[in-house]
Amino acid sequence: MRRNRIEAFSDGVLAIIITIMVLELKVPHGEGFDALRPLLPVLLSYILSFIYIGIYWNNHHHMLHTVEHVSASVLWANLHLLFWLSLFPFVTAWAGENNFAPNPTALYGFVMLMAAVAYYVLQQRIIATQGDYSLLKRAVGKDLKGKLSPVFYIAAIIFSFIEHRISWVLYVLVAVMWLIPDKRIERVIDNDN
Amino acid sequence: MRRNRIEAFSDGVLAIIITIMVLELKVPHGEGFDALRPLLPVLLSYILSFIYIGIYWNNHHHMLHTVEHVSASVLWANLHLLFWLSLFPFVTAWAGENNFAPNPTALYGFVMLMAAVAYYVLQQRIIATQGDYSLLKRAVGKDLKGKLSPVFYIAAIIFSFIEHRISWVLYVLVAVMWLIPDKRIERVIDNDN
Amino acid sequence: MRRNRIEAFSDGVLAIIITIMVLELKVPHGEGFDALRPLLPVLLSYILSFIYIGIYWNNHHHMLHTVEHVSASVLWANLHLLFWLSLFPFVTAWAGENNFAPNPTALYGFVMLMAAVAYYVLQQRIIATQGDYSLLKRAVGKDLKGKLSPVFYIAAIIFSFIEHRISWVLYVLVAVMWLIPDKRIERVIDNDN
Amino acid sequence: MRRNRIEAFSDGVLAIIITIMVLELKVPHGEGFDALRPLLPVLLSYILSFIYIGIYWNNHHHMLHTVEHVSASVLWANLHLLFWLSLFPFVTAWAGENNFAPNPTALYGFVMLMAAVAYYVLQQRIIATQGDYSLLKRAVGKDLKGKLSPVFYIAAIIFSFIEHRISWVLYVLVAVMWLIPDKRIERVIDNDN
Repeated sequence: MRRNRIEAFSDGVLAIIITIMVLELKVPHGEGFDALRPLLPVLLSYILSFIYIGIYWNNHHHMLHTVEHVSASVLWANLHLLFWLSLFPFVTAWAGENNFAPNPTALYGFVMLMAAVAYYVLQQRIIATQGDYSLLKRAVGKDLKGKLSPVFYIAAIIFSFIEHRISWVLYVLVAVMWLIPDKRIERVIDNDN
Repeated sequence: MRRNRIEAFSDGVLAIIITIMVLELKVPHGEGFDALRPLLPVLLSYILSFIYIGIYWNNHHHMLHTVEHVSASVLWANLHLLFWLSLFPFVTAWAGENNFAPNPTALYGFVMLMAAVAYYVLQQRIIATQGDYSLLKRAVGKDLKGKLSPVFYIAAIIFSFIEHRISWVLYVLVAVMWLIPDKRIERVIDNDN
Repeated sequence: MRRNRIEAFSDGVLAIIITIMVLELKVPHGEGFDALRPLLPVLLSYILSFIYIGIYWNNHHHMLHTVEHVSASVLWANLHLLFWLSLFPFVTAWAGENNFAPNPTALYGFVMLMAAVAYYVLQQRIIATQGDYSLLKRAVGKDLKGKLSPVFYIAAIIFSFIEHRISWVLYVLVAVMWLIPDKRIERVIDNDN
Repeated sequence: MRRNRIEAFSDGVLAIIITIMVLELKVPHGEGFDALRPLLPVLLSYILSFIYIGIYWNNHHHMLHTVEHVSASVLWANLHLLFWLSLFPFVTAWAGENNFAPNPTALYGFVMLMAAVAYYVLQQRIIATQGDYSLLKRAVGKDLKGKLSPVFYIAAIIFSFIEHRISWVLYVLVAVMWLIPDKRIERVIDNDN
């Protein structure tokens, strides 16, 4: 029951974040299709961030699935993650409205990086509360994706000042990497039963 | 429990989408009733989209009811559907604010069409995970409504450049068709028990 | 479980409506307290509508408590109620921003009236599905409040064109009337157990 | 089940409040980092209020955990609390956009104070419904934090007209005080089992 409420609150915040982003697609005043053209980069950044929030929701869902007792540190680590995710609409809109310019590209990567760090911290807090036989620890294993993502984000931040199109290729690559479904946790849970 | 969380998240997103649309009814500055007149098409498009989201919520509710295990592909097919539904506030407002002009009428139909396709894909993913004796497959049956809707949407898109009032008649017709309650799934579930 | 989902969706929509209204309290540009003065009527109308949504949530909660099976007609009667409630932020802001002028006062009453009618329709649909020994029917009894409210709203709409301050007194009176907790349903349920 | 719905509604409202605040971080038009500079105070006030809402959610979660039957007075005391919390986005944005000027600083403290009072009232209502052996009463104990917070808020309101930077130090101190996890309720519940 404890876990249920942290799930419900997180679901609520993630559902609102994902939907609020669409508000940045400001309805144009003209009625022609050309009035939509300036919105194209905003739509593209929206799609990317939508996928990212979907990935976070999916992984968050699996991770909390292993939790039985929510300690105060887990609760705050979760709020910390939600804080960084709550900045997605802002950085998404800033990047989209400025046609993926270098500075917004770098800030997008920075918030992505901080969210990844916050996710990692939350994961470690849960593992710590689960003790030696942590279900999550075994499920995560070497956590290759989790370790690769920050490297990609840092590379993208650096590239944003050199050739910012490469940064967006990296952001897309990370999303694609995570889209390949994470069967590890499911497998370990199944083995347990 | 798995299913519960995908339901809760979808409910959250649909509740926000349906409520966010009303924000496009911008509060007028004048205090006379004539200040409301420009809002009438926005209100009409809001009502239509409200009904559409209600229909999707209702059918989604019945469809997920048959699901026992949420696979990764079902989860992403669901997010794909939510993505297209999240564009409803935008296309609704664009159509309403431009008095149902041809281009917004076509885009409205396009997003409707893509949502219908996404719904169909989700349905097929669920049926695929349920195997030979899929409860949903039997419930859906010939899926006449599901097959007719895209035809209507495509017709409406074409008509939007010829006589766009016909397109809106078609959009209303599809809504009316779906409003007739879908007893198929309920019936099959009852037979099963 | 069925009922759970209609409750969750309604809770979501009501939570969003109640919170969206506060967005009409536009942050003023000045830093003095006098910059807040034009917001006072907006705040007052927000408080009144907040209480109204609270009352609806409370009564809705009790009413659905008696429901066991959600039929299609109940589901749509519920969405119909949510539609009128979704217009509260708009009429609240229009009334507040125009200092409770006659026309916005009348429209506020009209939406209140339609929400009350929608609530009544929902109540009747639930009673109809429950058959002869309807728990809700006995709980509602003579439904004095439910019958008085529309009378007050209609009176308030008429007064809005004569002396609109009386209309607001009536709106407050209806809220006060409902704030007196509705023990009827609770009593009947207790008797049943 | 009763409790579940008041939890779900409160979770929904809190999730929306916490996410709506981020909308005040208006996307700047320039693409340079200097375009972000005016947003820094808005971000800082957002972070503080985010933490406050997190604290309220956490404590609210623990408090409702002790509730078995939700009476009408508890329900309205809860809505009263949600009302004051719903004003957080407004006072947060006003303070942030005016660089923490004296008047917004005082109003921020006033809303904090009223939310603390509303929380106290809710706590007392719950204790009253629980009778002599109230689980919550024993859990709260001397309620040192609960009694200290209003004193700090009042001091901060006074200081806002003398040296408003001290007020913000006080607001941060209260947040830090509450961040130290409240193990009292957890301990008493554990003893009970």
